[in-house]
Amino acid sequence: MSVKSKSEADTVAAAGFAEVYDPVKPYLADLDAFLQAQVSEMEPEVQDQVRYVFGHSGKRLRPMLVAYSGWEGAAPDRNAQLVKLGAVIELVHLATLVHDDILDEADTRHRQETAAKKFGTAAAVLVGDVLFSHALKMAADFPTTEVCRAVAQATARVCAGEIAQTYQRGEVNYDREFYFRVIQLKTAELFEVSCRLGAEVAGYSKAFAEAAGLFGRHLGIAYQIFDDLVDLYADESMIGKTLGTDLEKGKFTLPLLLLLEQLPAEERETLLARFKAGDASVASDFTKRLHDFPIFDAVVATFEAQLSEATAAVAPFAEEAPVRALQQIAELVRAQLGRIAQG
Amino acid sequence: MSVKSKSEADTVAAAGFAEVYDPVKPYLADLDAFLQAQVSEMEPEVQDQVRYVFGHSGKRLRPMLVAYSGWEGAAPDRNAQLVKLGAVIELVHLATLVHDDILDEADTRHRQETAAKKFGTAAAVLVGDVLFSHALKMAADFPTTEVCRAVAQATARVCAGEIAQTYQRGEVNYDREFYFRVIQLKTAELFEVSCRLGAEVAGYSKAFAEAAGLFGRHLGIAYQIFDDLVDLYADESMIGKTLGTDLEKGKFTLPLLLLLEQLPAEERETLLARFKAGDASVASDFTKRLHDFPIFDAVVATFEAQLSEATAAVAPFAEEAPVRALQQIAELVRAQLGRIAQG
Repeated sequence: MSVKSKSEADTVAAAGFAEVYDPVKPYLADLDAFLQAQVSEMEPEVQDQVRYVFGHSGKRLRPMLVAYSGWEGAAPDRNAQLVKLGAVIELVHLATLVHDDILDEADTRHRQETAAKKFGTAAAVLVGDVLFSHALKMAADFPTTEVCRAVAQATARVCAGEIAQTYQRGEVNYDREFYFRVIQLKTAELFEVSCRLGAEVAGYSKAFAEAAGLFGRHLGIAYQIFDDLVDLYADESMIGKTLGTDLEKGKFTLPLLLLLEQLPAEERETLLARFKAGDASVASDFTKRLHDFPIFDAVVATFEAQLSEATAAVAPFAEEAPVRALQQIAELVRAQLGRIAQG
Repeated sequence: MSVKSKSEADTVAAAGFAEVYDPVKPYLADLDAFLQAQVSEMEPEVQDQVRYVFGHSGKRLRPMLVAYSGWEGAAPDRNAQLVKLGAVIELVHLATLVHDDILDEADTRHRQETAAKKFGTAAAVLVGDVLFSHALKMAADFPTTEVCRAVAQATARVCAGEIAQTYQRGEVNYDREFYFRVIQLKTAELFEVSCRLGAEVAGYSKAFAEAAGLFGRHLGIAYQIFDDLVDLYADESMIGKTLGTDLEKGKFTLPLLLLLEQLPAEERETLLARFKAGDASVASDFTKRLHDFPIFDAVVATFEAQLSEATAAVAPFAEEAPVRALQQIAELVRAQLGRIAQG
């Protein structure tokens, strides 16, 4: 199987994630039952819309990270807590997706109409708010305020990352530092919190929880770089015009930033001027040039370095039960890159 | 001074609130300093927008309720907690205003451009999210999860109320029960939480905190009814075309619901048909008819009943220090109605 598109990439990664580790399947079943039960806890006015969002909500990547980081070796009474924690983080993630689709004016997600398209912008703003506030209400069920604090803080950072990205649209930002700042905020943050709180709620030591969080952070960065690569390099014959959708949305991903560094100054200026002027055909001119430089390999090296940092973070805790599964996920993500390269 | 418009009503009410009770002034000064200091705690990408929202953010009505319910008689070390609690609730309120202005497509609030107008819809969605998540992060600084839970729950309900209202636009809902449901969710909820948590954080008994919360809930309903009256009855010669703006936005407030019950069936059907067809001139035809029935008095009776319920809730706790200030606020709100009647 080759990766066909960006939304496919998510699906492929998640399917693989679920295969690494057997206990994830019952965990996901419990999670879905728990999420469905939450709908009836919400005010009647919002239940239909929330049920709709739950119905097409992707692959539960972040709750899976909660399970990986905590389920194995946790006391049985902690398992219900881990399901609730996964639900909190998934709700926050869904809230950000519902709001992101407003910003991106996206009509579909996971092949279904977005909430913004189906219910209108106004309702989508509110549905996102409801998902977020319900998540925080559930977070308050944990014995200490730590889950509330970490989840609220992560959400603030995810939004800050989205603001940074929204503001730079139009004004090109070639800065690699800026790129990493945005993915630290937008993606790595919730990956970190999923792993760190997963370990903490399961009762592992603070030191291991911090290490698991660091694992999550680097996995998140690697995962985002993988996503960038899929957008530009995945089996082009099958992608057709969906290739380079990030650039069409004004997002300069890592491969494009590296390309800009390599292009002759004059060509770079011309392409950027066309981009700023809103010339739609510039995306394909950028992507054509990608293959004239060893950019794929450079991006892969960055990706591999992030995965190595992820596994190094938990390596000192080899005696802890979750570490084997975490290492396997890192391997799985690494292996998926091969599919693009062969695409 | 007569009340000139809806946004004036807020200002008048709040100015009066601050006069009732001397310690509110230093409290508000501390609150403003605290809010300003929070800006630098946020990610750099969002600071400018948040500072802008703080700069034109109304009169801190909800934090004042926190102060009324807790400041008097609180141990000195609780005062900093009450300032933080007021800030949490104010941030949640500001977040809902920023998002409401997107829904209402409002260009100005408190005579300044809304965040939606100034920064665009996309940024306003995110700025609201940042304010809300920062509020919940601060809520996690309290020793127990109670503040997180109450604030998150209240936010979910405020959003549900807004959804109920958004969905009924266009499809007229004449139902008084529906009207009260919406204001319970949209307004009364945060008033209740302000008073209840104010008393609780100050260290008062659970029983008094519940009573203070009930006071807040009924005060909130009364306050919303006052707001409805201002929109339709305040000194018309000075309001000009801003009269009846609720109806222009498709909101059937209590006076209009009572009018619909009184109008002859045929006239009611005709007016509603014109309203549904989007006839802009129907608003003034509704408001003209308001004076032909004793609707003002009926609405005032409902308003008074809510204020009586508010004061009755705290009456059994006369020995508690905050009760006198709470009773005075209720009197103040009652007295303001006289200004409309004389308008």
